[in-house]
Amino acid sequence: MDEQFLHLIARRRHVGLRRLLAPGPGDAALQRIVAAAAHAPDHGTLRPWRFILVPAARRAALGDVFAAALAARRPDADAVARAAARDKAAHAACLLVAVLVDDPQAHGVPAAEKLVSLGAAIQNMLLAAEALGFASGLASGGALDTATMRDFLGLAPHEAAICFIGFGTAADGKPPRERPGPAAFFSSL
Amino acid sequence: MDEQFLHLIARRRHVGLRRLLAPGPGDAALQRIVAAAAHAPDHGTLRPWRFILVPAARRAALGDVFAAALAARRPDADAVARAAARDKAAHAACLLVAVLVDDPQAHGVPAAEKLVSLGAAIQNMLLAAEALGFASGLASGGALDTATMRDFLGLAPHEAAICFIGFGTAADGKPPRERPGPAAFFSSL
Repeated sequence: MDEQFLHLIARRRHVGLRRLLAPGPGDAALQRIVAAAAHAPDHGTLRPWRFILVPAARRAALGDVFAAALAARRPDADAVARAAARDKAAHAACLLVAVLVDDPQAHGVPAAEKLVSLGAAIQNMLLAAEALGFASGLASGGALDTATMRDFLGLAPHEAAICFIGFGTAADGKPPRERPGPAAFFSSL
Repeated sequence: MDEQFLHLIARRRHVGLRRLLAPGPGDAALQRIVAAAAHAPDHGTLRPWRFILVPAARRAALGDVFAAALAARRPDADAVARAAARDKAAHAACLLVAVLVDDPQAHGVPAAEKLVSLGAAIQNMLLAAEALGFASGLASGGALDTATMRDFLGLAPHEAAICFIGFGTAADGKPPRERPGPAAFFSSL
């Protein structure tokens, strides 16, 4: 068991959202993936995060948000760039947004620790997806922190969209990237 | 395989550092646990984190750091409080410090995304430890962000100690805490 588990952790790799094709997880698999998040360290039941699915029916609207964000950031962006921004909304068979719930009244917990909890929750989801046979990837970008996106997602003032999480079937069979051994990032006092 | 893996994710629970008794992971197991961190999303090889082991020989010195941090924060702390702060350094059979490497020159990546990567790396370590038969827990506190602690850990100006990670054998056999289902933190647009 332990060997299999460590192998699964090592096997999971990032797949760009553009290459996360159908089939993605259906409702039942997605519920299991999301349920894994609840088992991450949550800072004593604080659980400073939530996840929002952007279903197929809302992808075109997400594309409008991407296009608007690009226009605000680069008013000179040409039609090709705007179309590319809009097209990003169609990427990933299954697309979620990871949201930090940074309630300042919550226990005086530093925001850094809330983000670490979010990262742990996301990793549980990526690994659960891998176990269920789905590839995954994370993506971010300037559009996440715009008023238009906040409106689209229905975020409260103390919430922030941190990244996209995509699930699907990898378009290619690339092997996992070579990763550094512990010597690169582990030392002893 | 998938069922076993999802079960392991669900089974892993927080154990307070005080209750993480010997035996902890030996050198070989610790190397495997730390190696799991390298497989977390690292923002395109940025890998904005590192981990530092506080071995047995340095626990007394860590106790001095805790005592000094308490004295600075609460100059009126009595001898009992100071002894308790010092004793914390002996907790957890195996004790690591998680460090955010927040190089501002690194790709203009938001600090929030670096912290999410750190959280994912930590979760991989917690799950690897669980797979290898070791309990684990996270801890933080005001001492982490003091000049004395930074000196002790040898941090660079762009590094920050985010939390402690403990590994060991659980002093009790408590079952995992009940966790909320997806409805508590998952919605669809």
